[in-house]
Amino acid sequence: MSKRAYSLGKVYGLLEPGPAVLASTAHKGQANIMTMSWHTMMEFEPPLVGCVISGRNVTFAALKATRECVINIPTVELAKQVVGIGNCSGKTVDKFSRFGLTPVAASMVQAPLIGECYASLECRVVDTRLVNRYNFFILEVVKAWVDTAVKNPQTLHHRGKGVFAVSGEELRLRSAMK
Amino acid sequence: MSKRAYSLGKVYGLLEPGPAVLASTAHKGQANIMTMSWHTMMEFEPPLVGCVISGRNVTFAALKATRECVINIPTVELAKQVVGIGNCSGKTVDKFSRFGLTPVAASMVQAPLIGECYASLECRVVDTRLVNRYNFFILEVVKAWVDTAVKNPQTLHHRGKGVFAVSGEELRLRSAMK
Repeated sequence: MSKRAYSLGKVYGLLEPGPAVLASTAHKGQANIMTMSWHTMMEFEPPLVGCVISGRNVTFAALKATRECVINIPTVELAKQVVGIGNCSGKTVDKFSRFGLTPVAASMVQAPLIGECYASLECRVVDTRLVNRYNFFILEVVKAWVDTAVKNPQTLHHRGKGVFAVSGEELRLRSAMK
Repeated sequence: MSKRAYSLGKVYGLLEPGPAVLASTAHKGQANIMTMSWHTMMEFEPPLVGCVISGRNVTFAALKATRECVINIPTVELAKQVVGIGNCSGKTVDKFSRFGLTPVAASMVQAPLIGECYASLECRVVDTRLVNRYNFFILEVVKAWVDTAVKNPQTLHHRGKGVFAVSGEELRLRSAMK
């Protein structure tokens, strides 16, 4: 993937469709990855993203301690990795190594980008008010990278239990909405 | 659509893929509809849904006052209505009438279901802590209706400015994840 810096004002268009994503973190010298589908845009610019991360995950502790992560958006070629990553724990597995993914240095956070994902969003935690009650973190995207050669990304949309709808045909309608 | 009562424990599988939805409300004798894509699951059961609703929308005032709505999930056949509904205001338009949609009485809330949508989720507001800061409401789904004859729903996933990815092929992978 050849990713370039991407306008923060356009980030909502990447996450609003609801793709399963891979959240990467780095904590105590250990990079880790988590599969995540419970996220939503909360503001256009600066882009804010709300997401639920179970307290059982290594990512939860990393995010609380470092307040940084990268949200990486995979396409269908990575489906097996997306499921595999969701089915093991960073406590016992080096996920970059096991799943053959490439950690790439980010520019504004310590967590690595995942080279094989067509988009990567460097994030900082900006609000933890709902973490205790709902495991809900609010992140600000501080830097975005996208392979803009990917025109109609075949993202994965999780219906539960390993069943995904793959993003298909693109439909363009006249709209004044953002 | 012939919808039947649906297990609340399975609701997450409808919203986790990230479809654009139509939120219906009823307030002061007026039913209204809003197009919404900024939502996320927050808990499996009882199903909790977080969503951002702009303070400029009629839906925002209705939700604050009545604390009830219905989240309806449309498929691609309703794409024009989804965009049309997002491009006009309930202040001046009776959206059920203009867009030829059928209000159907809900069982646990005053807001109507939308007959033409393959799934409808009756919701109550359960947490407004983040409304002032982010326009973020947390809803509990109290009753769900789904047309289970729709096996691979071609839902709409908004990329911004009227561009949608339509849900395509279904992919089934072995997974122990919920």
